[in-house]
Amino acid sequence: MASNSKVTIIGVGLIGGSIGLALRERGLAEHIVGVGRRQVSLDRALQCEVIDQGTLDVAAGVADADVVIVATPVDSVATDVVKVLQAAPASALVTDAGSTKLKICAEIEAGGANTAGFVGSHPLAGDHRSGPEFARGDLFVDKAVVVTPTDQTHEETTQRAEAFWASLGARTVRMPPDQHDQALASTSHLPHLVASALAACTPEDWLSLAATGWADTTRVAAADPQLWAQIFAQNSPELIKSLDRLLAQLQAARTNLLANDHTQLEHFLQQAKRTRDALGN
Amino acid sequence: MASNSKVTIIGVGLIGGSIGLALRERGLAEHIVGVGRRQVSLDRALQCEVIDQGTLDVAAGVADADVVIVATPVDSVATDVVKVLQAAPASALVTDAGSTKLKICAEIEAGGANTAGFVGSHPLAGDHRSGPEFARGDLFVDKAVVVTPTDQTHEETTQRAEAFWASLGARTVRMPPDQHDQALASTSHLPHLVASALAACTPEDWLSLAATGWADTTRVAAADPQLWAQIFAQNSPELIKSLDRLLAQLQAARTNLLANDHTQLEHFLQQAKRTRDALGN
Repeated sequence: MASNSKVTIIGVGLIGGSIGLALRERGLAEHIVGVGRRQVSLDRALQCEVIDQGTLDVAAGVADADVVIVATPVDSVATDVVKVLQAAPASALVTDAGSTKLKICAEIEAGGANTAGFVGSHPLAGDHRSGPEFARGDLFVDKAVVVTPTDQTHEETTQRAEAFWASLGARTVRMPPDQHDQALASTSHLPHLVASALAACTPEDWLSLAATGWADTTRVAAADPQLWAQIFAQNSPELIKSLDRLLAQLQAARTNLLANDHTQLEHFLQQAKRTRDALGN
Repeated sequence: MASNSKVTIIGVGLIGGSIGLALRERGLAEHIVGVGRRQVSLDRALQCEVIDQGTLDVAAGVADADVVIVATPVDSVATDVVKVLQAAPASALVTDAGSTKLKICAEIEAGGANTAGFVGSHPLAGDHRSGPEFARGDLFVDKAVVVTPTDQTHEETTQRAEAFWASLGARTVRMPPDQHDQALASTSHLPHLVASALAACTPEDWLSLAATGWADTTRVAAADPQLWAQIFAQNSPELIKSLDRLLAQLQAARTNLLANDHTQLEHFLQQAKRTRDALGN
């Protein structure tokens, strides 16, 4: 992608900060502006050198921007994108980094602003830690970014968003918002729910007997509870469907444990191993 | 611990092989003998240099041994330990490395051999990969090893086992077999069951949308299905109790998702994060 004269990042936490660092390290922007809600957040981002300049004023931040990325918590994304679309140049590419897409994209299209420059995105990259202190310029390298055009999205806008993420090292996958939410319920939201349930039902007295298996399986439970409660609530219909498939699987395992059915237990573990091996490390 | 003139390892896979390597690297044994069921397994172990000598004959392998470690799959441990106790010198320390303890220790004590030299052990160290190729001399460093004496165990035997594991770099935890199985159901067996259920109910078409969250949460599902079916079956009463606590937690989460109860969802995630953070990385 050609260099952008100005890129504005709304929300400079781990994801927003990593976008800033990636742009800087790859020489892809002349000027990187961060927009935050609190001066203290902007000061942290400036200190981490993930942005060149910070402002609390969305309109000022997006003026003359070539690209605007909204990387705020999912409950705020739609409102923030609509504000950006109302203030940014009509020529700007506007996208987001929210972990859910159906509700966000629908709310933006119902928001009354001109959405010609907008398409939704979800970079499948992150960390269980939050904040610009953990930002990494290579966070998106070889990671998938889902770009989610709707019937109303301009093809050129989708292509610009794909080129933007590719310029940060990511591979892009294009799918409609509802398909995204259905797939991510299984591949991201359900694992998070289950990791949290496992952690929550482990007596703390026994943590000295937790080895790498417990540590790996529960790692994402350390993520920000507020951010994830929002993600769960935004995608609750699909998350419940995925959860019901898991509950059926666990009930079947319970039946086989109770019956001491070694053959069925091994068959279940073999099927699980096949799927896990298909991913690789 | 003073150097042993001869240590015999029954079963030279990942755990047995790592014990051999650790002994060798730390200069803790003059002679390390591996006992296997198949010559091809012994040849692999010899090639990986985790043992000095291999034999298919248990009695020959344990003759004159100072220490014997049984590191075979949990369904074989009790039988193998009884065979060892019948053939090894009365002065030998005999222990195992099985992931379950109640059934194994009970079967050994009912096995008719002199159990004065035996105490059960479970090193909380491993890998989702199997075989001596993945053995590591530092596998036990700073890891917990549970040593599980019963009413019949000689205190001196327990102390020798603790000293043995400590000499490999581990920290030991002493508890009765039933308490071990209760705790490990929560901290190891349930996470494994859940990781496998998650992997098994993820459509393979969506794996391209699986990021580090899915990868971490399901990692242990890549382990050997046969070994783990045995572990599940050996500890099924405690595993079912742990599973029921998890199912209750997941059902509560489902209710809160359905009701869109953001406060309860966040409360649940906060509780999970507290427990996860208590472990550290």
